[in-house]
Parts: sequence; C-alpha cells; structure tokens
Amino acid sequence: MSDLEGLVAAVRAGEQRAGARLMRDLDDRQPRALEALRALHPFTGRAYVTGVTGNPGAGKSTVVDALIAHYRATGARVGVVCVDPTSPFTGGAILGDRIRMQRHALDPGVFIRSLATRGHLGGLSRSTFDVVAVLDAMGYDRILVETVGVGQDEVEVMRSAHTTVVVTVPGLGDDIQAIKAGILEIADVLCVNKSDREGADRTVRDLLHMLDLRPDGDRKGVEIVNTVATRGLAEGSGIAELAAAIERHRALAWDGEPGKARALKRAAAQVAELVRALLADRAAAALAAGGGLEAAALAVAERRQDPYTTAQAIVDAM
Amino acid sequence: MSDLEGLVAAVRAGEQRAGARLMRDLDDRQPRALEALRALHPFTGRAYVTGVTGNPGAGKSTVVDALIAHYRATGARVGVVCVDPTSPFTGGAILGDRIRMQRHALDPGVFIRSLATRGHLGGLSRSTFDVVAVLDAMGYDRILVETVGVGQDEVEVMRSAHTTVVVTVPGLGDDIQAIKAGILEIADVLCVNKSDREGADRTVRDLLHMLDLRPDGDRKGVEIVNTVATRGLAEGSGIAELAAAIERHRALAWDGEPGKARALKRAAAQVAELVRALLADRAAAALAAGGGLEAAALAVAERRQDPYTTAQAIVDAM
Repeated sequence: MSDLEGLVAAVRAGEQRAGARLMRDLDDRQPRALEALRALHPFTGRAYVTGVTGNPGAGKSTVVDALIAHYRATGARVGVVCVDPTSPFTGGAILGDRIRMQRHALDPGVFIRSLATRGHLGGLSRSTFDVVAVLDAMGYDRILVETVGVGQDEVEVMRSAHTTVVVTVPGLGDDIQAIKAGILEIADVLCVNKSDREGADRTVRDLLHMLDLRPDGDRKGVEIVNTVATRGLAEGSGIAELAAAIERHRALAWDGEPGKARALKRAAAQVAELVRALLADRAAAALAAGGGLEAAALAVAERRQDPYTTAQAIVDAM
Repeated sequence: MSDLEGLVAAVRAGEQRAGARLMRDLDDRQPRALEALRALHPFTGRAYVTGVTGNPGAGKSTVVDALIAHYRATGARVGVVCVDPTSPFTGGAILGDRIRMQRHALDPGVFIRSLATRGHLGGLSRSTFDVVAVLDAMGYDRILVETVGVGQDEVEVMRSAHTTVVVTVPGLGDDIQAIKAGILEIADVLCVNKSDREGADRTVRDLLHMLDLRPDGDRKGVEIVNTVATRGLAEGSGIAELAAAIERHRALAWDGEPGKARALKRAAAQVAELVRALLADRAAAALAAGGGLEAAALAVAERRQDPYTTAQAIVDAM
C-alpha cells in the first residue's frame, strides 16, 4: 500500500491523527494532501452540514456546543469547523469560547477544527469546503460549521452548509439590525437565543417582518426557534426544537428533485470557489516574483504610472 | 475637448454630478470610466484618508458624522465612503444611520458614497480605492472611509486609509473582545465611544493590555481617545481630541522617510488588489462561459469527478 493509499485508508477509518495531519497539510498546500483530497472525494457526500452564523455576542458557540451534545446523545459522530476570518496577522485569535468547547475534544466521537484567515482571498471558504470533505470522509455524520463574525466572508463560508442557522439575541442596537438584514438572506432557520431576555417577542416580530422583505419574497420553510442555550446541555431550552427545525429544513430542501438541484448548486459553488482560489494563488505568485511589485508600486506612488495600467501589465505578463 | 477630457475636467473641477456618474460607471466596469480613472491618477494623492471601523453598535457612523462636522468647521471639503460588505444579494441594505447622515448631502462641501458587495472577490477593496481616487481628484481634502462591520473585508478596505480609527464601546461581551483582537492589529488610533457609559475605564485598560499583545509589540503612536459622539456636533465630547490624535498619527507616520515607505506600501497594496480583482474578473468570465460550470458541477455532485481536478481544468482552459 502506497503512502497515499495509507493516508486515505486511515482517514476513511476515521483516525483522528490522520485527519488532523491531512487538514494541516492542506493548509500548507502540500500537493500530496491535495491528491489525498481528490482520492477521498468518492467517499464524501454522506455527512449533513449545518452552518451556524449570526451576530457577535449572540451565543453562537454555546448553541453549537449544545447541538454537539444533542447529536452525541443520538449516537451521531460530530465534526465541528470553527471559522474566524477576523485575524489577518496572527492566524486567528485564541478564543475563550473555543477553548471551552475543547472539552468535547476528549470525546472520540467529536472532532473540532479551527480555521483562521491566512491572508489569501477565497482562502477561508475553500478551506472550509476542504475540512468538511475530510470530516465527511472520516465518517462524521453531522458537521457543524460555526463562524465568529458576520459579513461577506461568513456568507461565503456558509455555502458549504446544507442548512444555515442564523443566531441572534433580543435587544441589539440599530447597527446590528442592519447586519442582520444582510445575513438574514442566507438563513434557513432562525434561532433567537437568550430568549428569556426582555424583548424576545419583539425580536421575533422584527425577524418575521424582515423575512417578509427578503428579495425572494418567500419565507416558506424558514422557521424561528427560541433557545436559551446552555453550554453542554443537550435538551430543554429549545435545542431539541432547533435540531427538529434543521431536520424539517433538510427534508424540505434536500429530499427529492429540489435536493438534486441544490446539490448541483452547492457543487457549482465549490468549483467556482476553487477556481477563484487557484487564480488568487497565481496572483500571489505573480506579485511575489522578481520584485516587480516594488518597482511598480514606486511608479504608482510617484504618480509616474497609474495603478490600473500597472496591474493590467502584471496580469498580462502572467 | 473629447468626451473623456470633458469628464476628467468636470471631475477635477469637483462637479458632484460628474463624480457620481463616474463612480456609477466604475461600478459597472465601463471601459471609459476606467480610462477616466487612469487619466485622473496624476491629480490624486492630495487628500488625507481616514478609515473608521470597529464593532457593530459602537456608533461608528455617529463618530463619522461628528468628524464631518469637525472638518467642515475648519473649512475642509469632506468625502465619505460608506462600505457595507454584509449584503451579498440586495446590493446593500438601506441603513437608517446612513440615511440620517445624508443631511450632509445638502452641504456642497460634503460628498457621500455608499458601497456594497457586488459578489466578486476583492471587489469592495478595489471599489474603495477607486472611489477614494475620484474623491481625491475632485478636490476633497478629507476622505472618511467607514465600514459597517468588522472582519477580513474591512481589514482589506482599510488598506486605502492613511490613518485607521477603530471605534469601540464599553461593556461588550466576550465574543466581541475576540473580534477586537483581530481588528486592533490595524488600529492607528483607538476611539472609546460612549465613554460616559459605565465600564469605560476598564475598556481603556483592556485596550492597553491588548495593544501590548500586538505582534509588533509596539503601541508607540497608538493613542486612545474617549468620545461621546453626538450626531452633527463638531466640538466637545472628544471629537476635537480624536481629530488631533489623527493629525499626530499623520505627522508620525506620513511625514519624511517613514511616510515614503508607507506610501510605497499603500501603492503596492492597491496594485496587488487590482491584480487580484482582474484575475477574479477572469475567473467570473470563465465560469459564466458556455455552461461549463453546470456540467462540471453535475460530475462533482454525482461524485464522478472531484472538484479540485475540475477547477484546475477550468483554470487551465482559460
């Protein structure tokens, strides 16, 4: 058995060390890792991927933690991808919440992987697809993809999910309402967390109103679930209801003919993402090569040449 | 005088209708608009660009509004770019705050332009550079670039700024602290807004501590300013102090030799951004052409072909 076959077999057998090594090697763009990912593709497509995004402070990681406990109680194996696009320099802040979630790491039925920005465009969304594929091939039944913030990066990342849960809380300010309007557009299930707080009814009313404003003019199938998620608690507090709403969306969206159309759309999103990423790699290589960028930047800074002509010349030379 | 020369002359004369039309045509990627941008390049580089970013709910747009009033009181002309990367589908939410800021639109010395995601990678950062260049050529002395959220998109957008102000408020939760850690790394000036709130002292202490953790291990020149910004109020409430801190950063960072090095870095960032954007355009064109993506997606969805090989084939065919 070749080295590559050995790695593929180990990943398929669900060996956590093999999976973690493959993910690390994928981060470093090792050709061998990419080969492994290709070889694993036929063995993916079994896991159900749920994305969890929403306002900072809404308690997303607590909701994810409670969902892990819920799915574990049903016997499912759970993979988790925590995506943090906010730290361009350090390779990701070390988050208290994430560390606390690591207690699940003692459970062999749970695998948690954090992803942070590495500075290349399209990188996070591609990496999320990659990690989801590895977890899928490893045999995790449920994959939860959680994002830290809420923005365009997160919208891209959520393309890898079958069902997207948007978490919010009562009593956020105006600015946050605006953000919600953007992220709402990708919600399949809405979760009003900390719903024992004052103003929860109003938040639900606001959400219903905002759903009416969705461009597709269609809020059919988008359920609103109230939760009071408590770290590690599988039941009560709305988590079972949230899981049930996810199942209903799954049946509605992914079964039968509509499911086929969606699967096609998801595959197209992944291929498009990879194409963009490959081109971004080429751009990075072209910019790093031969000090051309420094000379070009000097001409631009001194107003001898405009940046648009300069950039076009670099692309043409590629 | 050719049509192009006429447009360039009108923009240089600061005619708002000409500037707005050029920005709109740039959004649509009209070749003529790009030509005008090239022709305007020699006449840019005069404006001072201040970026304002930070946590949702921190009152960024109120701070921007007060800074507009402050700069207007000094006689400067002010251009404003409001960047909202959160709405991928509608072309940008209509934000209450932004609308309220429009009262400055009655002032001919103020020009406000909103930018929203158009779905292409690198698009927002490029568009921000473009709009800043047009405002610069129009003769606006001060340009304020404000973002809605806080994430990787915003970090990219802030590359167009000479001084980046990060706005925060006392009493935010854990999640938000984590985000602050990411965005803090690009702060030149920190603004603790709503500093009459309980916990302001602690926020300043936390920020000082987080500055100590910056990778460059250097908080020299990063000032913390307390504000209680009130819409439309130029003075009092710390806004003059904030403006003074921006001036001190300007003198420290952009005068003399360090300023030359920074100008070079900023030009390099813009060229790199444009290269990425040009390649993203090519990717979009390649993906849109000939229905190749649909067929590829079907092969991937049916597990007949893996997405990595598929994407590589599309790029190779370009």
